[in-house]
Amino acid sequence: MSCNFGNKIKITIFGQSHSEAIGVIIDGLPAGFKIDTKKTAAFMARRAPGKNDLSTPRKEADEVKILSGVVDNITCGAPLCAVIENTNTRSGDYDKLRKLPRPSHSDFAAMMKHNGFNDIRGGGNFSGRLTAPLCFAGAVCMQMLEEKGIRIGAHISSIGKVDDKQFDPVNVSADDFDSLLVKAFPVINDKQGELMRKEIYDAKGSGDSVGGTIECAVIGMPVGIGDPIFDGIENRLAAAIFGIPAIKGIEFGSGFDGSRLTGSQNNDDFISENGKIKTATNNHGGILGGISSGMPIVFRCAVKPTPSIGMQQQSVNTETGEEESLVIGGRHDPCIVPRAVPCIEAAAAVVIADFLL
Amino acid sequence: MSCNFGNKIKITIFGQSHSEAIGVIIDGLPAGFKIDTKKTAAFMARRAPGKNDLSTPRKEADEVKILSGVVDNITCGAPLCAVIENTNTRSGDYDKLRKLPRPSHSDFAAMMKHNGFNDIRGGGNFSGRLTAPLCFAGAVCMQMLEEKGIRIGAHISSIGKVDDKQFDPVNVSADDFDSLLVKAFPVINDKQGELMRKEIYDAKGSGDSVGGTIECAVIGMPVGIGDPIFDGIENRLAAAIFGIPAIKGIEFGSGFDGSRLTGSQNNDDFISENGKIKTATNNHGGILGGISSGMPIVFRCAVKPTPSIGMQQQSVNTETGEEESLVIGGRHDPCIVPRAVPCIEAAAAVVIADFLL
Amino acid sequence: MSCNFGNKIKITIFGQSHSEAIGVIIDGLPAGFKIDTKKTAAFMARRAPGKNDLSTPRKEADEVKILSGVVDNITCGAPLCAVIENTNTRSGDYDKLRKLPRPSHSDFAAMMKHNGFNDIRGGGNFSGRLTAPLCFAGAVCMQMLEEKGIRIGAHISSIGKVDDKQFDPVNVSADDFDSLLVKAFPVINDKQGELMRKEIYDAKGSGDSVGGTIECAVIGMPVGIGDPIFDGIENRLAAAIFGIPAIKGIEFGSGFDGSRLTGSQNNDDFISENGKIKTATNNHGGILGGISSGMPIVFRCAVKPTPSIGMQQQSVNTETGEEESLVIGGRHDPCIVPRAVPCIEAAAAVVIADFLL
Amino acid sequence: MSCNFGNKIKITIFGQSHSEAIGVIIDGLPAGFKIDTKKTAAFMARRAPGKNDLSTPRKEADEVKILSGVVDNITCGAPLCAVIENTNTRSGDYDKLRKLPRPSHSDFAAMMKHNGFNDIRGGGNFSGRLTAPLCFAGAVCMQMLEEKGIRIGAHISSIGKVDDKQFDPVNVSADDFDSLLVKAFPVINDKQGELMRKEIYDAKGSGDSVGGTIECAVIGMPVGIGDPIFDGIENRLAAAIFGIPAIKGIEFGSGFDGSRLTGSQNNDDFISENGKIKTATNNHGGILGGISSGMPIVFRCAVKPTPSIGMQQQSVNTETGEEESLVIGGRHDPCIVPRAVPCIEAAAAVVIADFLL
Repeated sequence: MSCNFGNKIKITIFGQSHSEAIGVIIDGLPAGFKIDTKKTAAFMARRAPGKNDLSTPRKEADEVKILSGVVDNITCGAPLCAVIENTNTRSGDYDKLRKLPRPSHSDFAAMMKHNGFNDIRGGGNFSGRLTAPLCFAGAVCMQMLEEKGIRIGAHISSIGKVDDKQFDPVNVSADDFDSLLVKAFPVINDKQGELMRKEIYDAKGSGDSVGGTIECAVIGMPVGIGDPIFDGIENRLAAAIFGIPAIKGIEFGSGFDGSRLTGSQNNDDFISENGKIKTATNNHGGILGGISSGMPIVFRCAVKPTPSIGMQQQSVNTETGEEESLVIGGRHDPCIVPRAVPCIEAAAAVVIADFLL
Repeated sequence: MSCNFGNKIKITIFGQSHSEAIGVIIDGLPAGFKIDTKKTAAFMARRAPGKNDLSTPRKEADEVKILSGVVDNITCGAPLCAVIENTNTRSGDYDKLRKLPRPSHSDFAAMMKHNGFNDIRGGGNFSGRLTAPLCFAGAVCMQMLEEKGIRIGAHISSIGKVDDKQFDPVNVSADDFDSLLVKAFPVINDKQGELMRKEIYDAKGSGDSVGGTIECAVIGMPVGIGDPIFDGIENRLAAAIFGIPAIKGIEFGSGFDGSRLTGSQNNDDFISENGKIKTATNNHGGILGGISSGMPIVFRCAVKPTPSIGMQQQSVNTETGEEESLVIGGRHDPCIVPRAVPCIEAAAAVVIADFLL
Repeated sequence: MSCNFGNKIKITIFGQSHSEAIGVIIDGLPAGFKIDTKKTAAFMARRAPGKNDLSTPRKEADEVKILSGVVDNITCGAPLCAVIENTNTRSGDYDKLRKLPRPSHSDFAAMMKHNGFNDIRGGGNFSGRLTAPLCFAGAVCMQMLEEKGIRIGAHISSIGKVDDKQFDPVNVSADDFDSLLVKAFPVINDKQGELMRKEIYDAKGSGDSVGGTIECAVIGMPVGIGDPIFDGIENRLAAAIFGIPAIKGIEFGSGFDGSRLTGSQNNDDFISENGKIKTATNNHGGILGGISSGMPIVFRCAVKPTPSIGMQQQSVNTETGEEESLVIGGRHDPCIVPRAVPCIEAAAAVVIADFLL
Repeated sequence: MSCNFGNKIKITIFGQSHSEAIGVIIDGLPAGFKIDTKKTAAFMARRAPGKNDLSTPRKEADEVKILSGVVDNITCGAPLCAVIENTNTRSGDYDKLRKLPRPSHSDFAAMMKHNGFNDIRGGGNFSGRLTAPLCFAGAVCMQMLEEKGIRIGAHISSIGKVDDKQFDPVNVSADDFDSLLVKAFPVINDKQGELMRKEIYDAKGSGDSVGGTIECAVIGMPVGIGDPIFDGIENRLAAAIFGIPAIKGIEFGSGFDGSRLTGSQNNDDFISENGKIKTATNNHGGILGGISSGMPIVFRCAVKPTPSIGMQQQSVNTETGEEESLVIGGRHDPCIVPRAVPCIEAAAAVVIADFLL
């Protein structure tokens, strides 16, 4: 099924961009945990649109209402269902898309899958809006993981052709994450951040959009978690991360760059540090044979440029079969990468919680 | 569970490098299909070691014995179990690894996970040898998919710093696959192939190893297959592909390169061709919103350099806690990429069959 | 996970008796089906309390709000989420239960499982109230099954020591179901129904409760559906039916009575009827080797007497460890069997839909 | 899928009565457990045929070969695969069954499901023979459970119309199980056992068969295990038990008899015993709200009379559509109940291990 993920912590996401509400069920949460709703709200605010001129001017309050699973915000062992009402919808914008699917959007594939009965308003349940309940689930899992000394953080590692510094894969720390959390534009090197913003403004100025990459790290991970073959940490993280719209690639540790190296360059020697076995380098990204090595888990994701652009494009009228030009109206993000940062963290939190709680 | 994959076609892989046997159960195969065992054997021969001086001199017959699920090689609707006996094992080589985990291998993580009870001989069930039953499952699925007009093919797209040509993502064809199948070293551009082989010989000569990438395509895919969010084709392919040891990255369509582009560069316009809706380009890699668009599915995987190298490395003695130098004996592949090509195809076949059969 | 069921049609039930709301997600429904909300409301009304003096005087409107998965009540292929607000709750009644678990209720086991953090109000998510969303899911599935010529019906087959007639397992028909649907007390033999009601009044009069059994049949089932071993129709029906609180037994076809017979008595000869292969009798209950035979599927369930009774009982104070007497207040059903009839049908509908849609 | 069961301990059963081999994969076993193969062999011997004149004279050695998952019989954390070769098969007996399905056997349903491609020899993978690998899996799980102080035992509780005594549901003990284990015909009351044997001899004498019931108990179960709704102990046990051929009913605690009682009769008062909370009676069968109460888990199963009888029966020729009489040859059990006793225990062990390990 498309909307389920996880084994021990199982999340189920539902809703369409313009349905009554969207939401998530989180099943398997241990009872007796007090959810800090201020922290969940702060986490979700990082994803919310309309914060600045880099994102869509569409305002979404994203106010979460918990329907079940808690008593006085303390988990009670029952499935937690949280919903967010869809209030600020303008369905009129999407009428012509029924006939004229947007390039590189899900419209065409969804229409073919559902015989034209898919909810095309706002992208239906293919919408990036569905990452809001994912972020809520991730925020809850993250609070629980923090109690176990596990932290997750991410930053924009590139926009268009401009790159940020990367995390130090051996020494990435909670301080690194904390300093990213206070930034409106979460990059390590703010100078590069300025250049990245410029890429976004440029794209916006020409009615275009731009893609980027996000780097994420998990620290405090105990050693020996995960399974070989199909239930390794890489398999599970990848399966969750590709659930975020616009993600088209993922790599762990040295990833694609590592594939160009020799074994002697890419292997990570073991060292002994204060009686603990660690590795001197971390090209393996904290995962060996699908299992955590105790080193930071590090991965990077490719985010494609937002397919909804203001420029004229070509589509095919599904009724007439004729090629037609298309200009997409509505309010769109010129770059989805900044808002995707907490989504990546949230997906990672859900996966790691599923392994550990 | 670590050894299960799939929903409708479910495969379960078992065995360790030096256990009595390794094997696979394939459940959910439709009854009445005649398995062409010559074709499955030919497929598995592509993965087998010892074929030439580029791979380990270790000989593995990889003779498959079908224990159940067929009557006269015709599927009968019962789970198909196939086993391969482990005959050519030299366990003695691995004795010291119990104390001294190999850098960038699963040894250390597995020991920590299983309290030292993991089967360390030959990598246990973390061994690349477990891809043999995966290849068998893939070969069977591929035969069934071919009856539906679906073909899957892959090539070595880089070794070390040398790149092959890439598939034409719009027009990649069965002919492309057929011409790769007859090559001992499956690349599109044989001149580049020569340079790649040199990279491998060089690594071998210095007791080192080298990584690479593999590109895979699925053609003939019907439109509208897959689900958004967690059960998209990307999620499922990634979850399976990371089950192959040494894979550290995957990207679909324009992938990481596409993340550096603008929407107007990366979007794929729709066109009408003989009454069929297609896209003019294929940066989306045949998948939109998790669902097949009808265009070829194209993805690339990063394969890390084989961690088992002959050069001296540093490890930590898990009994004494002291750092020690380590030289790995045994017979190893200087480059796993050529043998991983059919494994990638097999994993893809299993996933696509799970969606379609 | 506790709240998920199904493979192709997957339902996820959430909520507690006194949480903000209860509800269900139905994933996997084919797109393009118009849900008849009058019919779903009528189905749910059969389960609703407060209809007559045989059930709890507690009124629950059970008004369903569909949050997602439809456009104008037509399924769109996205997960359907439906919620029912909890309005008429009187939590005060349950305060002392935190210390003094009710005999034969889930209180004690739930407290032990969740370290005292379970939501004890109204039974939390162990409450029979959770069958309301199950009934909604069943009502939707049933509408879809009816389009395929499949009907499901059930009747009260015993209350206390009084038995109803049983369905004719060979010839049970849609007419039988239709005549049950118009009855406030759904029995085949109304005279026996009168005696059953008297059993309930007697129990109610003395502050006691009474159990019973329910018989259910599925007709129009195609032959050849289901799988041997763990995914047979019996396995799946049993797994779902035991999800309804108070169910303590299930039997298919001749069931426990059949275990007292010889093979020659219990076997069902095959006959040819208008070119169709049927069985002369139906002791196998429509299921052979886990697979449908094409004959009506017939099963019976045991419903225990409602554990919440007004009479004095003995419990143990979980704080002091002392035995104490307990009298349960609140508003309870003297017999849950009549309201459980549509729940059994709903669970069966969900299972059969999962096999067929 | 039909052949998988479990979440944490996942078993996968494969094979047909006359395929090369049958077997089971057990995934999720903790590493470091020494399997006592003498004990597993002794357990399987209880199921094996040909032991006495009450069962089929067919001899099956049922010798188990472990292919993977252990090193020197100590689990290593990898999936354990165990196979049993099929040696003593006489396929000729089954030829005419292709045309003439046996009454109350799976033949007809399987043919319809698999378009005639099912393996009809010996019942294919619908054969009771598939309980041999189930017994192996159960025997392994049972050894692990015993280390945690959990014991499982079962006895024949009726054959035809003759009943054994039932377990004392409050005080059933390991001694009760031990005294059953040494009996060739496992009943509590040996006098009743004699009458039961007579029922079997009578059936055998007239070429007929006879059914019965089996009662099973689990003791030492910790309190608070299981989940409400769909993952309760009852749901899971039922789902597994119906995987054993010929099972047509299951009831927990007072079960169907309890449905005829009032709440005041059926409720189990809580008592305090040596500082532990227990119940005075155990009509709830150790399970409340799907969760263990800490009292013995007690359930009974209905086993239908073996459908393969020597008497003339009526079938329909699937080629001509004509009714024909049928006399089944081959070697069959006049009563499957005695051999099903360890199968019930094994299924229970697998389920309880899945909850606890």
